[in-house]
Amino acid sequence: MSAAHRWGDPSRAVTLPDGVRTLLASALGVREPHPPASVAALPPPGLSDRALRALEAACSQVRTDDQARLAHAAGMSTVDLLRLRAGDAADAPDAVIAPADHDEVTDVLAACAAHRIAVVTFGGGTSVVGGLRASRDGYAGVVAVDLARLGRLRHLDPVSRTATFEAGVRAPRAEELLAEQGFTLGHFPQSFERATIGGFAATRSSGQASSGYGRFDQMVVGLRVATPSGTLHLGRAPHTAAGPDLRQLFLGSEGALGVITEVTVQIRPTPPARRYLGWRLADFAAATEAARALAQDGPLPAVLRCSDELETTVNAVSEGASADGCLMITGIEGTEDEVAGVASALTERLAGLGGQPLGEEPGQAWLRGRFAAPYLRDALLDAGALVETVETAAFWSALPATYAAVRDALATSLAGQGTPPLVLCHISHVYSSGASLYFTVVAAQADDPVAQWQAAKAAAGDAIAASGATITHHHGVGRDHIPWYRDEIGHEGVAVLRAVKRALDPEGVLNPGVLLP
Amino acid sequence: MSAAHRWGDPSRAVTLPDGVRTLLASALGVREPHPPASVAALPPPGLSDRALRALEAACSQVRTDDQARLAHAAGMSTVDLLRLRAGDAADAPDAVIAPADHDEVTDVLAACAAHRIAVVTFGGGTSVVGGLRASRDGYAGVVAVDLARLGRLRHLDPVSRTATFEAGVRAPRAEELLAEQGFTLGHFPQSFERATIGGFAATRSSGQASSGYGRFDQMVVGLRVATPSGTLHLGRAPHTAAGPDLRQLFLGSEGALGVITEVTVQIRPTPPARRYLGWRLADFAAATEAARALAQDGPLPAVLRCSDELETTVNAVSEGASADGCLMITGIEGTEDEVAGVASALTERLAGLGGQPLGEEPGQAWLRGRFAAPYLRDALLDAGALVETVETAAFWSALPATYAAVRDALATSLAGQGTPPLVLCHISHVYSSGASLYFTVVAAQADDPVAQWQAAKAAAGDAIAASGATITHHHGVGRDHIPWYRDEIGHEGVAVLRAVKRALDPEGVLNPGVLLP
Repeated sequence: MSAAHRWGDPSRAVTLPDGVRTLLASALGVREPHPPASVAALPPPGLSDRALRALEAACSQVRTDDQARLAHAAGMSTVDLLRLRAGDAADAPDAVIAPADHDEVTDVLAACAAHRIAVVTFGGGTSVVGGLRASRDGYAGVVAVDLARLGRLRHLDPVSRTATFEAGVRAPRAEELLAEQGFTLGHFPQSFERATIGGFAATRSSGQASSGYGRFDQMVVGLRVATPSGTLHLGRAPHTAAGPDLRQLFLGSEGALGVITEVTVQIRPTPPARRYLGWRLADFAAATEAARALAQDGPLPAVLRCSDELETTVNAVSEGASADGCLMITGIEGTEDEVAGVASALTERLAGLGGQPLGEEPGQAWLRGRFAAPYLRDALLDAGALVETVETAAFWSALPATYAAVRDALATSLAGQGTPPLVLCHISHVYSSGASLYFTVVAAQADDPVAQWQAAKAAAGDAIAASGATITHHHGVGRDHIPWYRDEIGHEGVAVLRAVKRALDPEGVLNPGVLLP
Repeated sequence: MSAAHRWGDPSRAVTLPDGVRTLLASALGVREPHPPASVAALPPPGLSDRALRALEAACSQVRTDDQARLAHAAGMSTVDLLRLRAGDAADAPDAVIAPADHDEVTDVLAACAAHRIAVVTFGGGTSVVGGLRASRDGYAGVVAVDLARLGRLRHLDPVSRTATFEAGVRAPRAEELLAEQGFTLGHFPQSFERATIGGFAATRSSGQASSGYGRFDQMVVGLRVATPSGTLHLGRAPHTAAGPDLRQLFLGSEGALGVITEVTVQIRPTPPARRYLGWRLADFAAATEAARALAQDGPLPAVLRCSDELETTVNAVSEGASADGCLMITGIEGTEDEVAGVASALTERLAGLGGQPLGEEPGQAWLRGRFAAPYLRDALLDAGALVETVETAAFWSALPATYAAVRDALATSLAGQGTPPLVLCHISHVYSSGASLYFTVVAAQADDPVAQWQAAKAAAGDAIAASGATITHHHGVGRDHIPWYRDEIGHEGVAVLRAVKRALDPEGVLNPGVLLP
C-alpha cells in the first residue's frame, strides 16, 4: 500500500489506545484484520508508444513509474482504501501527466482526444465517491492529469476582494498566500489539508464555516475551463442576467465536462477575532429546532453543527468527559465587536431554545479535532473496524424523517450482515430551508468489507431517495452515487448533461464513467 | 396602440406639468411628436387551419382576435413602444394560447414542435430587451403562450419557509397570497406591478431589496420546466453537490430552453418594521466608496442605492427640493430591534464615510416613487422625449471607469445625432465584489427615434464590453443584447447552449432568435 493512501502528515498518525481496541472488540466484535498487502498489484501499463510520445509532446512532465501510478490509483473512500490494503490497484492510471499551465492542459486534452485516452483530472485526490476511477472500456488507456504544478496565485484584487488561483493550489497554501495580504477564503472542509482549489470547484465543496463564508460554489466569481473543444472563460461581473449561469455547469462537473484550470474566488479580510462555543440541547429534536431557528432568524454563526445523542456520547467518551443530550458547536468570526455582539445575541437566543451554555472548551476541542477524522479512520481500519460516512441534505420539514430513515437503514443493513454498527450523526450545514445530515458508521469488518459496505451504502442511498432528500450534500456523485443521481435529475436532466458533454468532449475522454450514467 | 402598451393602472397615468414640458423643450429641444397611430397594423394571421386545430386540441383556450394578438405584440422597451406608437405591430403572434396547467403547456409544446410553430412564452410581458419578439423565418407561425391561467399557490411549507407557485402568478398577487400566511418574497423590481413569478425566474430578475432578500435566482429552490422533449423537476434539497446545478440553466433561459411552469421559492416572515433613510455624500466617487464599504463590511441594509450628481439634482428638482452632492437611499427591514440596531450602526458607519443624514423623508419619497418610472416614461414619450435605460454590473475596481465610459458613450452618440441627452445614473445593487450601474437617458426624439436609440444603445453596449463589464445585470439578453452576449460567453459557451437546446427542443420552436445567437 502506498503511503499516499494514508491520510496527510505521517507524523500525525493516530494510534488507538488499548481501551478503545478492547471496546471495539467487546461492543462491535471488531477483530484484527489480515495485514495489508505489502505491495499492491499494478496492472501492466497499457499505453502504446505512439500515444505516450503524443503525451510527451503535449506536456513537459509525463511519468509512468510505479510510484506515480500507485499514488494516483484511487481516491479516499473507505472502499478505495480497503481495495488498496487488499493489494488491488486495478484502477491505477497508465501514466501521470503534470502540465505546467493552462496551455499544456489544453494540449494534453487534444492529445488524449486524438488517441482516445481517458483523462482523470487529479487535484488533491480526496474523492470519497469513486470520482477518480475512470472507465477503461473502449479506451486506449487512462492517464491521471495531476494539476499540482498549476500552483500559483495569479491575481489578487483587494478593492473587489477577489483572488484568481490556478486550480492545483492546495487549500492550506491558498490560505497562506491570502494571509500574506490580510485575506482568507474561509473554506475549511475536512479534506482541507490535501484538497485543491480546483477540486473544491469541480465537486461543489462545502466548508465547515459555510454559514459564515458560503459554500465554495457561492465563493466562485469566475472560472477558466479547458476542454477538448476549446477554453471557456466565465464570470466577468459580481452578477449577470446574461443568460443561464454557465459557471454552474462546471461547478460539480467532476472532471467530466472540462478541466478547471483557474478559479476566481471572493475573499474576505482575515477575521481578527473568533469564539467557538459549545451548547447542550436536551435531544436531537430540540437541537434540530434550535439550528433551524438560528438559520432562519439568526443570529447565525459562521460554524453551526449539532450532534445527535450517540455522537455526543461517543465524542465525550473519547475526550474523557461525560455527556448527556446533544452537543451544538457555534463558531463566531469577525471583529472583536462583532464577535461579542453575536455571542451575546446567541446566548440570549439559545437560552430561549433550551440551550445550556458549555463555554469555550467544547468549541476549542472541536477546532483541535476538525481535520482529525481521516487520521482516525486509518487507525480504525488498521484495527479491523469498518468506518465510513454518508451525507445528505433535506428541507427542515423532511429532516427528522430523513434522519431516522437513513440511520435505520444503515443499522438494519449492517446488523443483517452480522455486524451491528454504531451510527453517529450531526447536522453539518444549515440553510433557511433545510440542512445537511452527516452520518458516521463504525462496525466490525466482515470477511469481504467492500461488499459489506456497498450493501449498507445502497440501503442508505435508497432511504435517502425514498425520503425525497438529495444523494449528496457535498461529497459529489463520482461513480458511487450514479444510480440515485440519475433518478434525481431525471431522464431530461441526463439528456442535458450528455448534450453538454458531446459539445465539449466529443470523444468522451473526460473521466468516463464518472458523473454521467 | 393597445392600452396594454401603456404601463399598469390607467388611473395612475402621469401628466407632465407644463413647467416640465417647457424645460424639456428649452433644455433638450424636445418637440411634440406625431400623434400615435390610432390603430396598429396587425399582419394577417398566418397559421394554417390544421395547425390551429392541433393547438385547439392541445389547449382549452386559443384566441386569434386582434385584441389578444395586439396585447401580446411586444414587450416594454422604448423601442417596442415607439414601434407600436408608429402603428407597427409586425411582431404580433398569430394566436394567443392560454394553457390551464403544466400538462396543457406540455401538450401545446408538442403540438408546436409537430407543426413547427414558434413559441413565445408570455408572463407579464415586461421584457425591455426584445425577449418577446421571436423569429418567424422558417416557422409555420408564432404563438404567444400566455401563462396567466397558471395562477395558483400550489404549496406553502411554513417550517422550511418555501412556497411553490405556478409560473403565471403576478408579483402583487404572490405577495398577497404569502401575506395571508404571514410571509413575503421580498422581490420588488421596477416591473413588480405586472411581472410574474415565472418571468422573474426565466430572466434572472433582481429586486430593489436584493441586498436583504437576495436576487430572484438566489430565492429559487426548485423549478418545474416543460420542454418539447419532456419535463424537468429540479431542486429537492436546500443544497446539493449532485452534479452541475441544472436549475441555473433554466434561470435566465428566457423561454429558449423550456417553459418554466412552477417555481419553488424561499420565503420570509413579513418584516414587522422598516425604515428607509436618505444620506448625502459629497460626490459619486464618495458615494461609490461608501456603498462598497457597506457591501463588504456592513451593516448592509436590504435596499442600498446611490444616485450620481445629475440624477440627484433631477430627482430633487422634480420633488421641488434643492440638492447638491449625491443621494444614497438605505432601506432597513426586520424586527423593531433589528431595524433600530442596523439604523444605529449605519448612522455611525456612514458618518465615518462622509455621509450626512437626511432622515426618513428621502426614503419615503423613494418608496412612493419606486414603481413610477414606467408611468413617467409613457408621459415623456407622449411629450416627444426619448427615454430609456441601460444597465450593467462590474467589479468595484472597474466600476468608476465603467461608469464614465458608458455615460460618455451615451452622451457622445446622442449629441452626435443632434439630440444631446441627460444621462442619469445610480448604483442599484451591491455585492462584496462589485455593483450594478443603472443609467437613465432622456433626450429629444429624432425623426426616427428607433434608429436614434439603437445607435446610442450600441455605443453603450460597446463601452460596457470594452470596460470588461457584463452587458446586463438584470434586464436579460432577449434579442437586443445578443451581439455582446455572444462575446461574453464565447464560442464554447454558445456551443453549450446550442447543445442543450438541441436536446430539449430539437425542432427549435422555443423563442427562436431570443438568447441564442
